[in-house]
Amino acid sequence: MQLGISDNIKSVVMQLRTFINEVIIPNEVRYLSELQDDRWQSPPVMQTMINQAKKAGLFNLFIESDKHQFTGVEYAHLAELMGRSEIAAEVFNCAAPDTGNMEVLAKFGTDEQRSRYLVPLLQGDIKSGFAMTEPAVASSDASNIMSEARREGDDWVLSGEKSWVSGAGDPRCKFLIVMCQTEAGASPELRQSLLLIPMQSKGVEITRMISVFGYDDAPQGHAQIRFTQVRVPSTSLIGNTGQAFEIAQGRMGSGRIHQCMRSIGAAERALELMVKRSTSRYAFGKPLSELGGNVDVIANSRIEIEMSRLMALKAAWMLDQRGLHAALGEIAQMKVVVPNMALNVIDRAIQMHGGTGVSEDTPLAKMWAAHRAMRLSDGPDEVHREMISRQEIGKFPLTYV
Amino acid sequence: MQLGISDNIKSVVMQLRTFINEVIIPNEVRYLSELQDDRWQSPPVMQTMINQAKKAGLFNLFIESDKHQFTGVEYAHLAELMGRSEIAAEVFNCAAPDTGNMEVLAKFGTDEQRSRYLVPLLQGDIKSGFAMTEPAVASSDASNIMSEARREGDDWVLSGEKSWVSGAGDPRCKFLIVMCQTEAGASPELRQSLLLIPMQSKGVEITRMISVFGYDDAPQGHAQIRFTQVRVPSTSLIGNTGQAFEIAQGRMGSGRIHQCMRSIGAAERALELMVKRSTSRYAFGKPLSELGGNVDVIANSRIEIEMSRLMALKAAWMLDQRGLHAALGEIAQMKVVVPNMALNVIDRAIQMHGGTGVSEDTPLAKMWAAHRAMRLSDGPDEVHREMISRQEIGKFPLTYV
Amino acid sequence: MQLGISDNIKSVVMQLRTFINEVIIPNEVRYLSELQDDRWQSPPVMQTMINQAKKAGLFNLFIESDKHQFTGVEYAHLAELMGRSEIAAEVFNCAAPDTGNMEVLAKFGTDEQRSRYLVPLLQGDIKSGFAMTEPAVASSDASNIMSEARREGDDWVLSGEKSWVSGAGDPRCKFLIVMCQTEAGASPELRQSLLLIPMQSKGVEITRMISVFGYDDAPQGHAQIRFTQVRVPSTSLIGNTGQAFEIAQGRMGSGRIHQCMRSIGAAERALELMVKRSTSRYAFGKPLSELGGNVDVIANSRIEIEMSRLMALKAAWMLDQRGLHAALGEIAQMKVVVPNMALNVIDRAIQMHGGTGVSEDTPLAKMWAAHRAMRLSDGPDEVHREMISRQEIGKFPLTYV
Amino acid sequence: MQLGISDNIKSVVMQLRTFINEVIIPNEVRYLSELQDDRWQSPPVMQTMINQAKKAGLFNLFIESDKHQFTGVEYAHLAELMGRSEIAAEVFNCAAPDTGNMEVLAKFGTDEQRSRYLVPLLQGDIKSGFAMTEPAVASSDASNIMSEARREGDDWVLSGEKSWVSGAGDPRCKFLIVMCQTEAGASPELRQSLLLIPMQSKGVEITRMISVFGYDDAPQGHAQIRFTQVRVPSTSLIGNTGQAFEIAQGRMGSGRIHQCMRSIGAAERALELMVKRSTSRYAFGKPLSELGGNVDVIANSRIEIEMSRLMALKAAWMLDQRGLHAALGEIAQMKVVVPNMALNVIDRAIQMHGGTGVSEDTPLAKMWAAHRAMRLSDGPDEVHREMISRQEIGKFPLTYV
Repeated sequence: MQLGISDNIKSVVMQLRTFINEVIIPNEVRYLSELQDDRWQSPPVMQTMINQAKKAGLFNLFIESDKHQFTGVEYAHLAELMGRSEIAAEVFNCAAPDTGNMEVLAKFGTDEQRSRYLVPLLQGDIKSGFAMTEPAVASSDASNIMSEARREGDDWVLSGEKSWVSGAGDPRCKFLIVMCQTEAGASPELRQSLLLIPMQSKGVEITRMISVFGYDDAPQGHAQIRFTQVRVPSTSLIGNTGQAFEIAQGRMGSGRIHQCMRSIGAAERALELMVKRSTSRYAFGKPLSELGGNVDVIANSRIEIEMSRLMALKAAWMLDQRGLHAALGEIAQMKVVVPNMALNVIDRAIQMHGGTGVSEDTPLAKMWAAHRAMRLSDGPDEVHREMISRQEIGKFPLTYV
Repeated sequence: MQLGISDNIKSVVMQLRTFINEVIIPNEVRYLSELQDDRWQSPPVMQTMINQAKKAGLFNLFIESDKHQFTGVEYAHLAELMGRSEIAAEVFNCAAPDTGNMEVLAKFGTDEQRSRYLVPLLQGDIKSGFAMTEPAVASSDASNIMSEARREGDDWVLSGEKSWVSGAGDPRCKFLIVMCQTEAGASPELRQSLLLIPMQSKGVEITRMISVFGYDDAPQGHAQIRFTQVRVPSTSLIGNTGQAFEIAQGRMGSGRIHQCMRSIGAAERALELMVKRSTSRYAFGKPLSELGGNVDVIANSRIEIEMSRLMALKAAWMLDQRGLHAALGEIAQMKVVVPNMALNVIDRAIQMHGGTGVSEDTPLAKMWAAHRAMRLSDGPDEVHREMISRQEIGKFPLTYV
Repeated sequence: MQLGISDNIKSVVMQLRTFINEVIIPNEVRYLSELQDDRWQSPPVMQTMINQAKKAGLFNLFIESDKHQFTGVEYAHLAELMGRSEIAAEVFNCAAPDTGNMEVLAKFGTDEQRSRYLVPLLQGDIKSGFAMTEPAVASSDASNIMSEARREGDDWVLSGEKSWVSGAGDPRCKFLIVMCQTEAGASPELRQSLLLIPMQSKGVEITRMISVFGYDDAPQGHAQIRFTQVRVPSTSLIGNTGQAFEIAQGRMGSGRIHQCMRSIGAAERALELMVKRSTSRYAFGKPLSELGGNVDVIANSRIEIEMSRLMALKAAWMLDQRGLHAALGEIAQMKVVVPNMALNVIDRAIQMHGGTGVSEDTPLAKMWAAHRAMRLSDGPDEVHREMISRQEIGKFPLTYV
Repeated sequence: MQLGISDNIKSVVMQLRTFINEVIIPNEVRYLSELQDDRWQSPPVMQTMINQAKKAGLFNLFIESDKHQFTGVEYAHLAELMGRSEIAAEVFNCAAPDTGNMEVLAKFGTDEQRSRYLVPLLQGDIKSGFAMTEPAVASSDASNIMSEARREGDDWVLSGEKSWVSGAGDPRCKFLIVMCQTEAGASPELRQSLLLIPMQSKGVEITRMISVFGYDDAPQGHAQIRFTQVRVPSTSLIGNTGQAFEIAQGRMGSGRIHQCMRSIGAAERALELMVKRSTSRYAFGKPLSELGGNVDVIANSRIEIEMSRLMALKAAWMLDQRGLHAALGEIAQMKVVVPNMALNVIDRAIQMHGGTGVSEDTPLAKMWAAHRAMRLSDGPDEVHREMISRQEIGKFPLTYV
């Protein structure tokens, strides 16, 4: 079980770390300030950084290309670095939900879908969304999904309402992949299909942008979208009818690992800010690092980060070596552990900063909000723990009385 | 140690609960929607509710008047009810920092200060702020405060920078009470004085409004304010020179108790939302209340609220019966316990709501952010625990080796 | 809600505290050492102390007498003091299970039962046991109880097996109150009756003494007892047939409160030991109290004790004022909170003592073991939380879909 | 960073697992029962199992031999398996403190010391102890050690008192390695030397055996030993004078890793018992596994075990690849994490068992006591966290003001 930084990625790790520390992090303030001028346009500095990343050969690292080929464990180490800055993943065209959508189109898309949508996505010229969650039902139980597409002649006609469509606020977002019911009579896991819906289609309406702890997460945002009799050609189907769960499951593996590794990077950044604050701020004549239980606060943060990273890397290794089914337990464990760990570390970093920590003066408050949402997105903690528990109980089955 | 609802408040408790449940909570959505139109004006529905509260005799309950007289324990029960809605305390003219400022003016203000500022405050016609924290230093150690007022002839001339001046964003805010150094040579606890500074004074500049997580907390907000050679007449002094800590300490007692009791009301509201969600939302064929550890989640929330309330009521009783000095331990214990308890309960309520919990669709996310800030305002947890510990150690002093 | 130390108990509190600190605690080491000589005899120093307590009028404080009459809240304060020493409650004839048995006999016993068993119990001349739990079933669900008594002529004939019969190892233990099924056909809560079984009855056999962690809890101990065709006269019935649950429920109220208040006294003792150690032991040139997070450890312990005490006193007040049914929620909350709090405080005190803490050199390790068992006796935490949760959910009933 | 089960150990892992599950665990009850007859003699079944282990080639696995050679990571996997049973490590001659003593003698012993003590230790014919901790001082700060050996002619004369000398109660224990001061004038880390003291030396007196939560841990036990003018020849020195810390440090690395890996094995056993109980015990008509939060209890236990194992394996890998100094951080992290994790898992398993869990009917209660002591032995958690924190702070040093 090889979990370390392999020779294959040593140089890209160095290059990426330097790029993030020297290009991206110093531009964070500028990014936020440009965003103030027009919240729903990508700030110009983003495109500038994207151009630099392309030039440096650090684009589309998540997917195999002529120039690079990484195992899941290897890419996990890269994803961690990207997590150090909220805006880094986009710079490298490695941000969700685009990465998952690109993988889906690469694997299941028709030639036309790929030339029309995958190519510009890989160029970073357009963005995309993934619409699964619905406002009216507990979407942790995906069989609850009610949006429906009916076949009318050569078209699909889609109606329904989706929420938490992340990225849909960005004007560069050109299409959505929508999970909707097409096979009402089938067994629950075969009822849903995936349709590719261009944003400008008639009947697609963003009814509102949803906030996360007061943040609009512009310019991407999280949209609630109503689909009213949206008509698309039959070629808009991705894969086969009834194949939505099977296709979407792919995202559950690598997508979750990428997200969690970025969270570990975020936690490392939070710990760094925490320690720096503790050695530079004084009260009662001492640096904060020498007051009360702050040594324990720092030590526990280091310990929790280390353990979580190893767990996420093990999940990546299992997925690489044994496939999704065998890795489900490790992925679920990681999905519970990592966001909670990150929240703990970030929260302690906030506390070390005093009032500054809850304000816009550090990345910490926004980081916290984003990670709090992670305990709910892609399944709440409870669903993952239930699954882990079922695996354990399966080893010593119920004795019926 | 009488902690219950006394006969003296039975009827006002009933009246207040009804007013909050039937008038205020149903108006929360309207309040927020009016606020969207102009974030830095008080929404019209607020004044409407204020008028109703005045008519109902539920105004200025925090302070003794012809019509009512409450002990600290009694008012604590009323404050808890007000905490059920984020906007309730203002309706009853019982919101910080105005209540503390009114108490200070009533007790230490000159006749002129009282007629000019206290009377309209008691009418709810104007608002006020309290400026103590400074951006450049750890303000948990109040001896760090650096803003300074010099005496020039019959005037005070104030220079410095303050942050977290809550309420200063509201156009109705007409003056600030500012803590500043006037006695550089005195011992640390006698260096500071309080000045009453009208907002429209020359040299008072709001340099920015600080956010709490993604919330601007409009229309009150939290201001960062620069004071540049602000000249006010010598009659602007509150109490005597060097008396700032003594006067401000009064707020530390009742003010903190009020705040904590409101937090308990907020936690009760969160628990109510949590339970309602658990019995009305279904996943995997069961209500959430019957899934996983949700019974424990609910039970623990009830337990923690009950214990915290008793602790806060005991602190109020100690303050009533034995005075601030004797009550410091209980107040510190309460100040650590209550915000943390509220955060736990609110966080669990968020989790029970799924994605909805982090959005603007319930009061929970904003409630969480406000309570997270409470672990830092009025002294971070660490400072209070240090004090509690010192009291314990004082019982069995160090054995020197 | 009067929770403090009333005028009625001020003097007895003083007297009791002095007696415990000056007579009992200094005798703890002697008690343990005498016990080493013969583990299953009460050490002579116990009877000496009992005689002193009788002389001082501090005997049987738990029950109303000519000399004293305490409310539940008042006795709760006394019970807390007794909890400071593991051996104190027996000195005052206030130890479980005797207190519960005396209350049962006083209230439901026949004249003969009272003269033969209650009178010597009140004198401290004999001891008793209560046999409910059974080894073969989950006794948290009392309807599982399988021991059975059949009526044969004028006799009851009892067969079955009981475990965790505390006190039965003491040669002074002369009888047991045994819960057993007599009404097989009745509804579950009416199936059980209580029989008074003299220890020397034919067919009563202690099959083993059960340990708690490594402690035998001699000389009382916890017995596993087999009842083989034990024949007692029909006058051995306590109350009526089928009344066992109703009678036993009485113990659930005051008995649990007494136990929890004693635990609070134990936690106070642990905190005292923790603080003394922290100020007298040095490492790396500093007292432990100034190292790492020890200030937080001490402060948190103080906070948790205070909150738990208020909760237990509130439960006592509810029971006094509103009766058992109304107090069930508070009693359940207390039963979850107090043992867990005590475990936390004791565990921290152990940690402050280093290796000494886990040894026999302080009362801490044994105290910990006893409290760990309390999270299981009288219903595990889980059963109490389930009940608390049910009460909350009852306020906002399920919406059926 | 290769952390998995290598090809080199696949077969020994299989063999060892089978031996433990089929030979050792079924003999646990017999071992305990034989021990009841004579607590301070090794039960005969132990020697029987030792003979079987020797025959199976599973003896002395911890140390390189003709037959096997394992990296630290590889042996860590074997140690985990041994941790499944409290009595397994001794069967394979892999128990502390003998393993550490054998390593010390192999590396630093004279030829005479090795032929006289190392050879019979490797045969399992004798046992040994390691005496460092002293009752009078905080031994977490090893510079506090006060036992002293003076040179008199060709002899060392040792005086002092040691506690927690594990293994010294066993009659097979033939010698102790004692840390004592010989170089009073040297700098603190060079003051101590190691002496090999035969148990039967004049002046060696076991003053008592120390219990751990009521357990005597017979037949090894933990001795308090007084050394009164104990005279040994100068050849009893191990290594050089002043070299004690350097030699002892070796134990801090591999010894701690072995201990922690065994704890992980113990936690796995506890989880197994927990799950089996949850599926075989019924209350309120359901298996415990379907009641309340038990799914979370089980899932969290699995997660915590997985993370801790990865952390311990990483520490072993660091020690293998980079040496003790580089691995100190990881070893300290592991030393904090693993015993606390094990305590949590075992405690939950106890809770799942009800009263049975605290009794002698499962290995859980004794397992808990042993792990609680581990949070203090080899340095309390606090000392390790302090060290971890110092490493973090070292990355961003203090800014002096």
